[in-house]
Amino acid sequence: MNLYPEPLALLIECLQKLPGIGPKTAQRLALHLLHVPLEEAETLAQAILDAREKVFFCSVCGNLTDVDPCHICQDETRDRSLICVVEWPRDLFALERTREYRGLYHVLHGVLSPMDGIGPDDLKIAELLHRVKDGQIKEVILALNPSVEGEATALYLSQLLKPLGVKVTRIAHGLPVGGELEFADTATLSRAFLGRSEI
Amino acid sequence: MNLYPEPLALLIECLQKLPGIGPKTAQRLALHLLHVPLEEAETLAQAILDAREKVFFCSVCGNLTDVDPCHICQDETRDRSLICVVEWPRDLFALERTREYRGLYHVLHGVLSPMDGIGPDDLKIAELLHRVKDGQIKEVILALNPSVEGEATALYLSQLLKPLGVKVTRIAHGLPVGGELEFADTATLSRAFLGRSEI
Repeated sequence: MNLYPEPLALLIECLQKLPGIGPKTAQRLALHLLHVPLEEAETLAQAILDAREKVFFCSVCGNLTDVDPCHICQDETRDRSLICVVEWPRDLFALERTREYRGLYHVLHGVLSPMDGIGPDDLKIAELLHRVKDGQIKEVILALNPSVEGEATALYLSQLLKPLGVKVTRIAHGLPVGGELEFADTATLSRAFLGRSEI
Repeated sequence: MNLYPEPLALLIECLQKLPGIGPKTAQRLALHLLHVPLEEAETLAQAILDAREKVFFCSVCGNLTDVDPCHICQDETRDRSLICVVEWPRDLFALERTREYRGLYHVLHGVLSPMDGIGPDDLKIAELLHRVKDGQIKEVILALNPSVEGEATALYLSQLLKPLGVKVTRIAHGLPVGGELEFADTATLSRAFLGRSEI
């Protein structure tokens, strides 16, 4: 005999497939959804369907959007000579939150990873080269993660981009603000040394 | 300008209303739902609607169910002379997982809490008394949480139940299995002393 009534068991099973949600949290969320006003549960269900229906990738930069091209690509106040290359839309969101960068973006949708069978054709690299060849771009900023795959992808991209006559830069890696030297790992510390700048 | 496309922003907002889900987790879950096969997202949305539509409270014991009376109330192999009283369906699920108890249940849907304006009429107390008066019941086991409200409710219930000629018991409070005496709080330790049994 089952512990839960069938529809509840199904809901818990679905919730458990979400990242970071274990059996206990799934049960808690499911019971919460049974407890809230009906409208709130229906709004969530509809929001899931709506997001799937209306959100897609911008044909220019690969960011998530509900209009094509996306708001960032359309924004005339942005510096159209700068492209910042990121792995995923979530990285773009993180950079946008800083309100520091006012150029354009390009989302690769991953990094080169031969182990997982991900080669250049699986990423939006051709689209990036196409945008750079169009001529307006003066600098490409690589904001990839400092993982082995991220580094390799950055190197690969810089070799393709430099012959096109654009400046290729990468964001600085070093001590995080608020981080303490004593507790930083050696890789971060050596990067901080290599990337030192005059004051 | 918004960081996220409108339907994604809405989904994140809905997910953030779930217990224990902050803005970062909500973003992660929303992006995950955009990433998985369409079918998986649709199944989750449908599971939420189905659970709301098909799950209700058992008219006998107050447990969550999709048939009335629920499977536990219908189960003829269970000891119908025992009723275990719990606060919420989640407590019932926790007890069922032990596979120790084979009697019936009664879910109060809360505890007495004058501070929150919850009195006897807001709980399924009348239904419990009705079941006990029916005569089959020999023992009522109070499995309420050892909070101030839980204790008060247990006391209140025992005063109502004893005159009906049933045995009223409560589950033991003491050291949790695997817990160490040294680290137990004083309230738990004094309960463990009071509830000592001969070996």
